[in-house]
Amino acid sequence: MTDGDEIFKQFKEHSVAEFFKKNQQMLGFSGKVRSLTTVVHEFVTNSIDACEEAGILPDIAVNLEELGEEHYRLTVQDNGPGIPKTHVGKALGQMLAGTKFHRYIQQRGQQGIGASGCCMFSYLTTGKPTRAISRYKGTSYELEVLIDFKTNKPLLNMLSESPTEEHGLTVISEYKGVSHEQSNKGIFEYLRRTALANPHATITFTDPKSGRMVLPRSTEVIPPKPFEIKPHPLGISAHDLLEAAHHFSEYRKLSALLQNAFSRVSAGKVAELRQVVPDVDFDKNPSKLTWEEAEKVVKGFGQVKWIAPATDSLVPIGREQIENSFRNIFSPELVVVTERSPKVYKGGIPFIVEAGIAYGGGIASAGKQGEIMRFANKVPLLFDTSGCAITETVKSVDWKRYDLKNFDEEPIAVLVNLASVHIPYTGAGKQAVAGEEEVEAEIRFAVMEAARTIQRYLSGKRHAHDIANKKKLVERYVEQLSSDLADLSGSKKDRILKKLTQIIEEKYAAEPSEEEIPIESEDKKPKAKEPETEGDE
Amino acid sequence: MTDGDEIFKQFKEHSVAEFFKKNQQMLGFSGKVRSLTTVVHEFVTNSIDACEEAGILPDIAVNLEELGEEHYRLTVQDNGPGIPKTHVGKALGQMLAGTKFHRYIQQRGQQGIGASGCCMFSYLTTGKPTRAISRYKGTSYELEVLIDFKTNKPLLNMLSESPTEEHGLTVISEYKGVSHEQSNKGIFEYLRRTALANPHATITFTDPKSGRMVLPRSTEVIPPKPFEIKPHPLGISAHDLLEAAHHFSEYRKLSALLQNAFSRVSAGKVAELRQVVPDVDFDKNPSKLTWEEAEKVVKGFGQVKWIAPATDSLVPIGREQIENSFRNIFSPELVVVTERSPKVYKGGIPFIVEAGIAYGGGIASAGKQGEIMRFANKVPLLFDTSGCAITETVKSVDWKRYDLKNFDEEPIAVLVNLASVHIPYTGAGKQAVAGEEEVEAEIRFAVMEAARTIQRYLSGKRHAHDIANKKKLVERYVEQLSSDLADLSGSKKDRILKKLTQIIEEKYAAEPSEEEIPIESEDKKPKAKEPETEGDE
Repeated sequence: MTDGDEIFKQFKEHSVAEFFKKNQQMLGFSGKVRSLTTVVHEFVTNSIDACEEAGILPDIAVNLEELGEEHYRLTVQDNGPGIPKTHVGKALGQMLAGTKFHRYIQQRGQQGIGASGCCMFSYLTTGKPTRAISRYKGTSYELEVLIDFKTNKPLLNMLSESPTEEHGLTVISEYKGVSHEQSNKGIFEYLRRTALANPHATITFTDPKSGRMVLPRSTEVIPPKPFEIKPHPLGISAHDLLEAAHHFSEYRKLSALLQNAFSRVSAGKVAELRQVVPDVDFDKNPSKLTWEEAEKVVKGFGQVKWIAPATDSLVPIGREQIENSFRNIFSPELVVVTERSPKVYKGGIPFIVEAGIAYGGGIASAGKQGEIMRFANKVPLLFDTSGCAITETVKSVDWKRYDLKNFDEEPIAVLVNLASVHIPYTGAGKQAVAGEEEVEAEIRFAVMEAARTIQRYLSGKRHAHDIANKKKLVERYVEQLSSDLADLSGSKKDRILKKLTQIIEEKYAAEPSEEEIPIESEDKKPKAKEPETEGDE
Repeated sequence: MTDGDEIFKQFKEHSVAEFFKKNQQMLGFSGKVRSLTTVVHEFVTNSIDACEEAGILPDIAVNLEELGEEHYRLTVQDNGPGIPKTHVGKALGQMLAGTKFHRYIQQRGQQGIGASGCCMFSYLTTGKPTRAISRYKGTSYELEVLIDFKTNKPLLNMLSESPTEEHGLTVISEYKGVSHEQSNKGIFEYLRRTALANPHATITFTDPKSGRMVLPRSTEVIPPKPFEIKPHPLGISAHDLLEAAHHFSEYRKLSALLQNAFSRVSAGKVAELRQVVPDVDFDKNPSKLTWEEAEKVVKGFGQVKWIAPATDSLVPIGREQIENSFRNIFSPELVVVTERSPKVYKGGIPFIVEAGIAYGGGIASAGKQGEIMRFANKVPLLFDTSGCAITETVKSVDWKRYDLKNFDEEPIAVLVNLASVHIPYTGAGKQAVAGEEEVEAEIRFAVMEAARTIQRYLSGKRHAHDIANKKKLVERYVEQLSSDLADLSGSKKDRILKKLTQIIEEKYAAEPSEEEIPIESEDKKPKAKEPETEGDE
């Protein structure tokens, strides 16, 4: 054997930028089409987030120019507040830096990797820096940004500075070895779905093939801004509690820490906790809290009842918007949307699931079957389909229970949006949701709830069809019967016919005809109670 | 609108440790069973790598103790060279630090995240440090390690130091909220598959349920150690070339840089390159090379012929071992193994694909259908099945072309091992391979090549069956015909019967009987030529 000396001479430390440079595929930079869509995805989500943060109706312009074979220049411009001069470099040229990673708020971006990853990818394929123009508080700054991979720090080249009356950010970057096509994984489909989930945004896309296309906003109403919230006690770990004790050192008593660092903890709840966790002193200084005590408090959290996380911390797409979008895209026979109440998953992270099902009509005539449209915080997810908890959960529903055949053989489209202050993505590329138990359960319930309405509709339709058939059968004999009765009784045939017809009409009118089945009233009803049995699945 | 001031006060920089603390699912820490298997996976791969590096036959002991409900202590001990005192902390308590990330060599680990991720997960679930005992060069060091999340630096507590005659590393860590079960995602299955691909290792597993189980080595021969190699010119990017120019500043001429920094570049090849890239001066100082010139050289790489990467840089599991393993596990009716020649994917990264197919026999009787066993550098991949290029490629093969029904309905097991100096994992959790075009193509070819042998066998079997049926049919008439001929000719019936039987035997003996079909000679034949048509698929 050799000793370890030689190999340990090779021991080195690496920056996160070096890591992602070597593992570009983890950021979504694999495949020519996917790479370009990933770039658009990162810049557009940042732009919509910036507008949302500032309370601005977003106007986003995406401009793609073809400079050569598999060589493109992309410009993404927004009307957000812009970025101060001191921060532009870090926002675009440093990984794991930004305003998003540590905040407990529903946002599209959440890692501080996306934009700097694009800047990296642009440099690695073209050797060129990313150019940014930030119009912030009356001044327009233009600069070039590169990442120093060794240190994960931005390298800046200031180009110009001038007064402006506008605000917003423009990012211009070039890419080689990528391609642009109008597929269901391409830029246009990405932007179309973005518009679908963000109806208050106007998105303009100019590309070399089709010229300028506008996806205009369908509402002038800015959706409510999600609130930054505190973690919910349910699901908090002992480590989280001790970290809070360290972070919020201003609270001298555990009881005060609990009431201020976490949501939904009242003085009354602390009193309850004192009852269920008698051997922890809730008046002690949180800095003295041991791991064992923290574990006991956490166990106690699970033994008292809690109010769900505040709903205004989460802003879903919304029932009406999903219905409208489905109608616009598919002209389906039936649309059902369900919106669940907020829940928490591990770490006390609140989330909400909304699901829509569109059935038949235009879906059938377009030849589509078993389509799944995935969204996370209103951001469309186009890639890593099969490794995503949304796909897997939707497919795992026992569709036959809802009088449907195999999911993949039905004219059905399912939309699922997961809104949360932290989406559990499977990877830094943010295209698939990890299989967190609580999240999967909610997706399942939301889809099943909608599927029940589909089932009622289908069985109503079948029932109406049966009734209509019976009626037709009876009507066949009315004419003959009326004649025969007229002959026997001597009454007038017309009168008998009229009377018999009236009886038939009355009998079968008790059942609503096919057209009269209440198609959409279902989704206006109060939410269906949780089915007791379904949790066992 | 609000201005950006308030939000940019919240601009922060984060460490990679903070990132993975918040996104534990990206490292494989999601799900109770998966989390525990992930921990075993990380420590065991490191142990086998350490033994391989030092040329030692691995003896790995994995010991799992149940300390409470969903609370376990895991000990992984190896007989590798150990880690020097100066490096133990960083190896276990700092992310993106180590001997693996930057080296161009086939290894099981490749990120420098795995072990420190486990140390993190242990602390986050139990509040306890990870304990390590390193027996290195005559001294045994015992210490406790934690990660400082803010700085991504290790926090050490040295416990003891004493002389020893042994060598190796022992890592002891505790986990809560995890569970241990004997499923196909559990520790035992993980170790069983590890043993399958690493027959020179003895692995001992002790767990609370089944006691001590030994998976003994089946060979004393240490497999050849993969060589550290230089990147292959095919697929190198302009950025890679410029980086090499910066890194190897000792070469004063581009021609010398090319011959020394990359593999397979001879003086003759440089002469060829001068021909195809006339407007680049190959005598110029590499430090003066521009991006445009680097792009031209890279384009030139694609226009000359290259020798494939050196085979000894890649060490596959091996045909014989895969055959033996399949026979041991499944007792199948037929086993076919194909081993492709080395290829490169983007960045000049060499890789090799080997594939085995087992059919029928024990697979059918065990009720298994369409099983896929995935390996990367001999490491079993148990999770993220559906998002993996191996799974997707195997399933996308048109199995009907090979006289097989749907893959999922056949008694068939497919093993694929991808060996490379850099596996393109989809995520830091290293459980799925990203869809790199060249890699997918090779997986496809390897599987199709094996499938063709399966097809020949099945069609041979069917043919033999048809012949046997014909023979039976003819034999039915022999008796009667002999009697009739005896009556007509006056010859003895027995003699006619014997003669006729002999004729039939001779005729049908020309076709081998079912048992005589050469089942396994196929995989000893020289490799089949690349089918011209298959590249188009």
